[in-house]
Amino acid sequence: MEVTAQYMAQQKFCKMEFPLVFIFTLFAVAFLVSGERSTYIVHMDKSFMPKAFSDHTHWYSSTVDSLKSISPTSNSQHQNQPSVVYTYDNAFHGFSAVLSKQELETLEKSPGFVSAYNDRVVTLDTTHTFEFLSLNPATGLWPASEYGKDVIVGVIDTGVWPESLSYKDDGMGNIPARWKGICEEGQKFNASLCNKKLIGVRYFNKGVIAANPNTTLTMNSGRDTLGHGTHTSSTVAGNYVEGATVFGYASGTARGMAPRAHVAMYKVLWDEGRYASDVLAGMDQAVADGVDVISISMGFDEVPLYQDPIAIASFGAMEKGVLVSSSAGNAHDLGSLHNGIPWVLTVAAGSIDRLFAGTLTLGNGMSIKGWTMFPAPALIKDVPLIYNKTISFCNSTMAFSSVGYGIVICENGSFYEQFSYVSQSKAAAGIFISDEIFEDSSFNFPGVVISSADAPVLFDYVKKVARPSASIKFQQTFFGAKPAPVVASYTSRGPAPSYPRVLKPDVMAPGSLVLASWIPGSETGFISNIALTSDFVMISGTSMSCPHAAGIAALLKGAHPEWSPAAIRSAMMTTASPFDNTENYIRDYGLNNEIATPLAMGAGQVNPNGALNPGLIYDTMPQDYINLLCSMNFTQKQIKTITRTSYTCSNPSSDLNYPSFIALYTNRTTTKLVQKFQRTVTNVGDSAATYKVKVTAPEGSKVNVYPTKLVFGETYQKQSYTVTISYQGGHFRSSYIWFTNLG
Amino acid sequence: MEVTAQYMAQQKFCKMEFPLVFIFTLFAVAFLVSGERSTYIVHMDKSFMPKAFSDHTHWYSSTVDSLKSISPTSNSQHQNQPSVVYTYDNAFHGFSAVLSKQELETLEKSPGFVSAYNDRVVTLDTTHTFEFLSLNPATGLWPASEYGKDVIVGVIDTGVWPESLSYKDDGMGNIPARWKGICEEGQKFNASLCNKKLIGVRYFNKGVIAANPNTTLTMNSGRDTLGHGTHTSSTVAGNYVEGATVFGYASGTARGMAPRAHVAMYKVLWDEGRYASDVLAGMDQAVADGVDVISISMGFDEVPLYQDPIAIASFGAMEKGVLVSSSAGNAHDLGSLHNGIPWVLTVAAGSIDRLFAGTLTLGNGMSIKGWTMFPAPALIKDVPLIYNKTISFCNSTMAFSSVGYGIVICENGSFYEQFSYVSQSKAAAGIFISDEIFEDSSFNFPGVVISSADAPVLFDYVKKVARPSASIKFQQTFFGAKPAPVVASYTSRGPAPSYPRVLKPDVMAPGSLVLASWIPGSETGFISNIALTSDFVMISGTSMSCPHAAGIAALLKGAHPEWSPAAIRSAMMTTASPFDNTENYIRDYGLNNEIATPLAMGAGQVNPNGALNPGLIYDTMPQDYINLLCSMNFTQKQIKTITRTSYTCSNPSSDLNYPSFIALYTNRTTTKLVQKFQRTVTNVGDSAATYKVKVTAPEGSKVNVYPTKLVFGETYQKQSYTVTISYQGGHFRSSYIWFTNLG
Repeated sequence: MEVTAQYMAQQKFCKMEFPLVFIFTLFAVAFLVSGERSTYIVHMDKSFMPKAFSDHTHWYSSTVDSLKSISPTSNSQHQNQPSVVYTYDNAFHGFSAVLSKQELETLEKSPGFVSAYNDRVVTLDTTHTFEFLSLNPATGLWPASEYGKDVIVGVIDTGVWPESLSYKDDGMGNIPARWKGICEEGQKFNASLCNKKLIGVRYFNKGVIAANPNTTLTMNSGRDTLGHGTHTSSTVAGNYVEGATVFGYASGTARGMAPRAHVAMYKVLWDEGRYASDVLAGMDQAVADGVDVISISMGFDEVPLYQDPIAIASFGAMEKGVLVSSSAGNAHDLGSLHNGIPWVLTVAAGSIDRLFAGTLTLGNGMSIKGWTMFPAPALIKDVPLIYNKTISFCNSTMAFSSVGYGIVICENGSFYEQFSYVSQSKAAAGIFISDEIFEDSSFNFPGVVISSADAPVLFDYVKKVARPSASIKFQQTFFGAKPAPVVASYTSRGPAPSYPRVLKPDVMAPGSLVLASWIPGSETGFISNIALTSDFVMISGTSMSCPHAAGIAALLKGAHPEWSPAAIRSAMMTTASPFDNTENYIRDYGLNNEIATPLAMGAGQVNPNGALNPGLIYDTMPQDYINLLCSMNFTQKQIKTITRTSYTCSNPSSDLNYPSFIALYTNRTTTKLVQKFQRTVTNVGDSAATYKVKVTAPEGSKVNVYPTKLVFGETYQKQSYTVTISYQGGHFRSSYIWFTNLG
Repeated sequence: MEVTAQYMAQQKFCKMEFPLVFIFTLFAVAFLVSGERSTYIVHMDKSFMPKAFSDHTHWYSSTVDSLKSISPTSNSQHQNQPSVVYTYDNAFHGFSAVLSKQELETLEKSPGFVSAYNDRVVTLDTTHTFEFLSLNPATGLWPASEYGKDVIVGVIDTGVWPESLSYKDDGMGNIPARWKGICEEGQKFNASLCNKKLIGVRYFNKGVIAANPNTTLTMNSGRDTLGHGTHTSSTVAGNYVEGATVFGYASGTARGMAPRAHVAMYKVLWDEGRYASDVLAGMDQAVADGVDVISISMGFDEVPLYQDPIAIASFGAMEKGVLVSSSAGNAHDLGSLHNGIPWVLTVAAGSIDRLFAGTLTLGNGMSIKGWTMFPAPALIKDVPLIYNKTISFCNSTMAFSSVGYGIVICENGSFYEQFSYVSQSKAAAGIFISDEIFEDSSFNFPGVVISSADAPVLFDYVKKVARPSASIKFQQTFFGAKPAPVVASYTSRGPAPSYPRVLKPDVMAPGSLVLASWIPGSETGFISNIALTSDFVMISGTSMSCPHAAGIAALLKGAHPEWSPAAIRSAMMTTASPFDNTENYIRDYGLNNEIATPLAMGAGQVNPNGALNPGLIYDTMPQDYINLLCSMNFTQKQIKTITRTSYTCSNPSSDLNYPSFIALYTNRTTTKLVQKFQRTVTNVGDSAATYKVKVTAPEGSKVNVYPTKLVFGETYQKQSYTVTISYQGGHFRSSYIWFTNLG
C-alpha cells in the first residue's frame, strides 16, 4: 500500500513571472452599475429569522416585500417591483431577488443580512475510458461498489435527453427510499420519462427569466437542447448501450463510470443564458433531494470564494456529506483554473489511450497507422499518390488547381490550414505529416495524419517509384496508444486564483474525445458540406473529465458509505498516478510535452481500483475549512456568506489537512526560504499497520518528513507528520512523498 | 392441406403478338467462323471408350492428341496445338479442348463423339428475407431441417471472400463424411481458409485462359474479386452475423436461408471472362464432390437445351439426386427467360416488404414516410422548404442557380433525372414525388421520395404557410410494406425460349435489395462524390432470388433426405402463393402493376414452411425427362448430349409430370381448341387422405379435372388425374387448380 502526496513549488510560477500578489487581482468582479433592477444573490443568517415566520420562504418574501414602499412604479422594461427569484435553504441560506441598487442598500440594513452580489454568468467546461482506468467486473471498485448501486449522482447542467439509451433502466435497482426528488413536468417533458436510472429531473429558470424578462425559453423543461448535460450525465452513470459508435469509430458498449448509480438532472443552464442564481437553486435542491455526489462541469471565473456560487453551495453540500466534483476549466493558462475551492474535488483533463485511425497502405505493401476521424467508410483503394514540392505545402487553392484524382501529400505546414485547402480540392484524399495530438473530432474530407517518425517510409516509397499509389482504410479504432495519458492542452492550470494556498487541480481524469450520449438531431460531423448527426459524440474538455471523477466518487461512496467527501477525495488523490502507460512521468501536451506538474494534473491520473483501498486518508472536517477561511483575508460577512451560520475563528490555519502541498514564493525570492506543513492521516486499512516515508525531493530544495515512520495500532487510528520544505533557488518541478505500508 | 397447380395460357403471349414459331428463332447461336483455334465443348459417349484406356482422361487426351498430326504448326497468337482444357465425367461425359475448325471436323468422326459446340459466354443474374418468408425458430422448416444441418450447397459463381463474417463456422456441425471436395490453394488463398461453414473452394480457369491466352488473371484462386459469389453464397447459407448493415439501413443479424448448411464454392466466372467450359467444369466437380443442392445465378441466353451447359450439367446432377436452383434472368421481357430447363428449378425475383425510409416532418408537425437510401445520418432539421413552379420541374442546372440553402421540392418529372440535378445543386436536400418501387440502392445526396398519395399533405402545408420548413430523418428501416411481394420489374418472363411447353419460371423468391456479404474495399455507395465501401450490400436481381430458393431447397433436403430434386421442386411450387400480404393477387411491377401471371412468377412466392408438408407431390424420374426430350424435335446426338449415355425413346411424351401446365396457342387461333394433360401425384402425407379438386377457371375458357376426388389409402400411394382445357377465345390470365385435403 502506498500513499503519495505532492507539493508544487515555484518553478512554473516563476516562469510566468507572476508575483503572488497577482492572484488577488483576479478577484475583481464586474458589477452592474445601472439604476435599473437586476438579480442579486442574497445570503442571510437564518438564526435571525423572527419567530413570527413559519419558514424561510415566508421570511425572505416578507423582507423583499418590505422594500416595495421605497421604490416608485416605473415604466422600465425591467420588473417594476422588487421580487424574489429563488429562496435557498439547503446548500446555504438566502434568496435571489430582482432589486434596484437602492433596494439592495435598504436590504443590507435588514436583520440577518449577510451579503449580496450580482447574479453572474457561468462558464461551461465531456467510452473505453472505463477500460483505460482499469475498471473491470472481476476485481476492484466495480464489484466492490456493485457498480454504484444505491448511489445517487446529481448533475447540474443543461438538462437531459431522457430518451437516450443511456437512461434506460434495464438492470437498475430500486430507487433508494431516502430520495426526495421529483420528475418535474415541463415543455416536451412529462413525469413518466423518469425511471429507475433517471430518478429525478428538475429545472431552474427563474434567474434566466429575471435577467431576460422578455425572452421565451426554447425548451422550458429539463429537456436538454445543448447536449452538454446529456453527455456529462451519461458519462457519470449512463446505463450500458450496445452498439454505440460515433460514425464507425470507438464502437462498443458505452457505459458511465458508475453504470448502476441513479442520476438526477438539475437543469440550470439555458440556451438563453447561464446564471448563478439558477446554478445555486439547482445545487441547493440537489442537496435537499438527497444526492450523494454532485457533478458540476462549469465554473465561475474571476470571482472570490465568497461570491462563487459553486463554492458557497458546495460548502453546504460538503457539510451534508455530499461530494462535489467540478471541472478545472478549459482556459489552458497557468493560474486560469476555476473551481479552485478547497472543499470540492477539482478535476483536470487528460488524454485516452485510444487512436482513431486510418491505415495507409502503400503500393509496396508497407502500411502506416495514422489519425483520422473521417465519418464514413470512404473507398480509397490503389489511388495515385501526388507529391511534389510545390503542392506539398498545401497552403493555397492555386496549388491544387491542376491536381487530378489522387492522394495529395502535405508536409511542412499547419495541419488545420492544409486540411482546409485539401478538403476544397478535387483530390481523392490527403496525407498530412503532423505530430499533433487531436482533441477534436471534426474531419469532413478523407485523409489521414501520419507522424513525422513514420513519414520516411512514405517518402522513401513516393520518391523511388514511378507511379506511386496507396490505399486508406477508415473507421479504425486502436487502443494502447502511447504515451497515455498526457495532460490535455486546454485544461486550466493552477494555482487557483481564488485561493492559491491549496494545490489545485486535485486529480486528472480522461477528458479528450470522450464518447457519451448526445441530443439527437444536432450537428455532430460533416462529409464535404453535408452535415451529419449522431446520438453519441466524442468531445473534449474538463466538462468530460469532471463526470469521470464524479462517477468514480460515486463508486467509492457505494463501496465506503461512511467516507466523508474529504475522505473520498483523499483516496482519489493519494492513489492517483503521476506515471503514464510507458511508466514514465506523465507529459503535458499543453506545455511542449514537458513532464507535467501538479499545477496541470494535480496528484495525477485517477486510479479507481487503487482508491478503493488507499491505506491512509487525509480527512477534513467542516471546522477545518472554517479554520482555513478564518486564515484568509476575508471579513466576517464574507466568511458567513460561505458558512451560512455562526462560526468561531478560534483556530485560524492556512495549513489545511489536504493530501497535497503547495509552497508559494515570489519571483524575487533569492535567499533560502523554509515552509512547514502538518498533516494527520487516518488508517483506513483493515488492521494495524506501519508506514515508512520516502521522498522524491526536487532539485535545489530539501524536503524533510518527520517522523519517517508512522505506526498505527488499529483501523481508524490517526497519526500526524510534519513536512519541511527548504527552497534554495534553482529550477524544480515537483516532489512526491510516498508512504509505503510495511505491514 | 392444399395443392395448387397452374397453367398459363394465351393472353400474355397474345399481347406480344408472337406466333409460337418465334420461340424457336431464339435458338440461333453465334458460332466462331474463324480458322483459328478456339475452345469447344465436346460430348462423348463413354460406352465407346476402348478398354485400353485406364480412364476417361486418358481416352480424351489421346483423342485430342490424335488430332495433332493434321494441324501444321502456325505462329498464330492462339495455341499451336490442339489441347484439352477440361475433362468432365460426373454431370456429363466429355471434355473441352482448344481446336481449329478442321480439327473439330476430324474429331466429329472419332468413335464415341456425340456433339460439340463452341465455348460460350454466360450472363450473370443477386436479410429480413427469412422473416418475410416466415422462417422462424419455433416451428416449420427451420427447426424441422435443423437449419440445413448436414446439407451441402454448391455455389457456382465468382468465388468467395472467405474472411467475410458470413463464413465463420461458429455453431456449425461437422463436415459430412461423404464430402469429397477440397479447399484448393491459389493466389491469396490458402487451404486453411476453409472451415466447417465454407467446406470447399475450387476454381476453374482453363476456359478463360484458353480464350485469352495472353491474359494474367487478376486473382488466380477461389477468392472473389467481384462480390457476386460472396453475396449469393452468403444468401444461401451464410452464418449469423450480428450488426450487419448497409450504411445504417437494414441493420440486424444477417443470415442465409439455411444458416447451418455447409457451403462449397466453385469459382467459374472471372474478371477476364465467363466461359461455359469453366461453368461446366465447376458443376461437374460439384456433383463429384457430393453437394446436395447447386445454386447457379447465371444463365446462357439464346441457346438450345443440348448446347446449354447448365441444362447439360444439371441433367447429370438431377440423375444423382442433386437439385439445381437457377435464376430466370434479368431481361424483363416476355420470352426472355433463361435456364428454362425442365429438370432444374427456375427462380423469378420479387420485392421484399422492407422500406428504406426517411421521415419527412413538416413545420406543422405532420410527418410523411418516404423512400431514401442516403448512406449517412445527414442532419436536415428545420430547413426552409423551397417550392415554386419553375424550380419544381428540377430538370436543369439553370433552375437551381438561385436556390439557397433549403429543401427543394420536385414534382412532375422522372425521379432519376431530377435527383441528378438536385444532387449537383447547393440545396440542402430534395423531396421527390414518385410512385416508383426502388430496386437500386444508390442515393448520394440527402433526399426523400414520397408517394403521390402523400404529396397533398406536403403541398397543403407549403402553399399555406409563409416560411415553410421541414426536417428529414435518414437511415430508417420499416417492415410490413404493402403490397409485398410484387414481381420485380427486371425478372425475365417466360415462356422459356428453349422449351416453352414446360411453364417457366417455377417460383418467385425475394430478389430486390437483398442484403448479403460483399467483398471489402469495393465501391458500394457515394456521398456527394466521395466513394464509400461496405462489407454488406443490398443488390437486386434473380441472382439474389436463386440462392433464396436454393437455401430453401437445402432446408427441404435436410427435412426430407429421401426426396428427389423433382419432389423438392414440386413441394416448393405447389405450396407457393399467388397472393401478397394484402391477400390480393400478387402484382407485377414490371407490367404496370397488373395482376402477375405465372409467366412472371411461376406458381408464386415460395413458402418454405408450406413446402415442408406439401401433402401431394408431382414426382419426375430421369426417364420422364428422357421421354420429354424424345418428344422434342431433336436429333439422337442432340439428345445424347444431354443424357450422356444410351437411352430409349420408346415412350416419347411432351406431357411431363410437372406441377404446372402451359397451353400454347398461336395468335391466330380463333376457333375452340382443346388441350389435355395428365398428372400423377404421390401422397407424401403421414396417412391415408382424400383430396377434392377446386378449379379457378379463366374467363373465356373451360377447365375440367377428372376425377374430382383423389383417394389415397396410404403414404406414398400415387393417383392420376386429367386436366382438359378448352380455349374459346377472349382474354384471360391464369387458372389455379386447388386440391384440398378432406382428411
